[in-house]
Amino acid sequence: MPVNPHAAIEISAFRWVPDFAAGLVRDLRVRWALEEAGLDYRVRLLGQEKPPEYVREQPFEQVPTYRDEAVQIFETGAIVQYLGEKDERLLPSDPQGRFRAIQWTYAALNSVEPALQQIVLVDIFYPNEEWAKLRRPGAEEFARLKLKRVSDWLGDKPWLEDRFTIGDLIMITVLRNLRHTNLVAELPNLQAYQARGEARPAFQRALADQLAVFAENQPQGEAA
Amino acid sequence: MPVNPHAAIEISAFRWVPDFAAGLVRDLRVRWALEEAGLDYRVRLLGQEKPPEYVREQPFEQVPTYRDEAVQIFETGAIVQYLGEKDERLLPSDPQGRFRAIQWTYAALNSVEPALQQIVLVDIFYPNEEWAKLRRPGAEEFARLKLKRVSDWLGDKPWLEDRFTIGDLIMITVLRNLRHTNLVAELPNLQAYQARGEARPAFQRALADQLAVFAENQPQGEAA
Repeated sequence: MPVNPHAAIEISAFRWVPDFAAGLVRDLRVRWALEEAGLDYRVRLLGQEKPPEYVREQPFEQVPTYRDEAVQIFETGAIVQYLGEKDERLLPSDPQGRFRAIQWTYAALNSVEPALQQIVLVDIFYPNEEWAKLRRPGAEEFARLKLKRVSDWLGDKPWLEDRFTIGDLIMITVLRNLRHTNLVAELPNLQAYQARGEARPAFQRALADQLAVFAENQPQGEAA
Repeated sequence: MPVNPHAAIEISAFRWVPDFAAGLVRDLRVRWALEEAGLDYRVRLLGQEKPPEYVREQPFEQVPTYRDEAVQIFETGAIVQYLGEKDERLLPSDPQGRFRAIQWTYAALNSVEPALQQIVLVDIFYPNEEWAKLRRPGAEEFARLKLKRVSDWLGDKPWLEDRFTIGDLIMITVLRNLRHTNLVAELPNLQAYQARGEARPAFQRALADQLAVFAENQPQGEAA
């Protein structure tokens, strides 16, 4: 059971988030990698009002941060890559296999996620703004183009390269940003790819552990 | 002189781009890293209409791609990190120094660049769209917040960590996306940081080499 209050590895996460963010907050990515690698970790919970010193650990005041006996770092891409270097099941060690996986980690975070976040911005954060209504068709067209590129690359392969890596872990959690839409489902091989990742026992444990924290810390008077 | 038609390292780049993109296209990042490391490279030039097989090298049909005797990869974050592993001047080798640099590479590409690209989208790509006019104040506020976070982190340090790394290289090229605005100049330490990076001889050579290609391939009838 990786969540262990006495573990050397510590990550930060939110105590509670509204439903639209539950199962998406980025500590999920790190929890998933830790589960795949079977590494115990403890969780430092933060409220939406973080302690003033947190900005010295995480300049953007986001979660998660990561620390162990060797490093103190932030950014899920970097953390997941660091964990990958500890465990070949997450990241191959030969140069080509290693950098093909790292390239997909960057692609998910820089070539795909920004396009998908535009849909989230419009639909979840600004649904009633005039600009958001006018922008949505263009944002959707752009997101669809990016998804099509990933789908075309995948074809009938189970993973982006010849085995599961951190590139898939990050890409699949990026695709989850669109769970309130049918955009992924329009591409059956991409939908199957996301489902294949989410069916992994390590993902299921990571998700359950994130959601359990939110359930425990549900504010009085907030709907579940 | 790193640009060398007989080099083992090959990158892809555009033959020509309009002025708004000259000095921003992402092969600049890889050229800069190659110059810092003193590694010779050759350039494979592409038109805006890429050959049909290019999508098998770069699923998003962007530039640059990178290949040498050991790897064939895309995504500037991954390429620059790969080059960093060849040269400690780009990327420290101790775990903490190494992953602090990698964390900033990811932060520049995932926590900062998407916010700045919204300003580019509104100002450069859709200046006459009604949604863009309505969206600009909010996009500017969000970009300003991200820049402030980087500025606050920097304080009076010359670099993001205790020495120049690939994290600075990527962050500085990300800040260049806002060159048509005063947003970086509003934060004097951030402006000085960008200028400090751009003053490096390796950056200057990389920029000159990118611009020289565009000048050589200027289409007939296009203003310089």
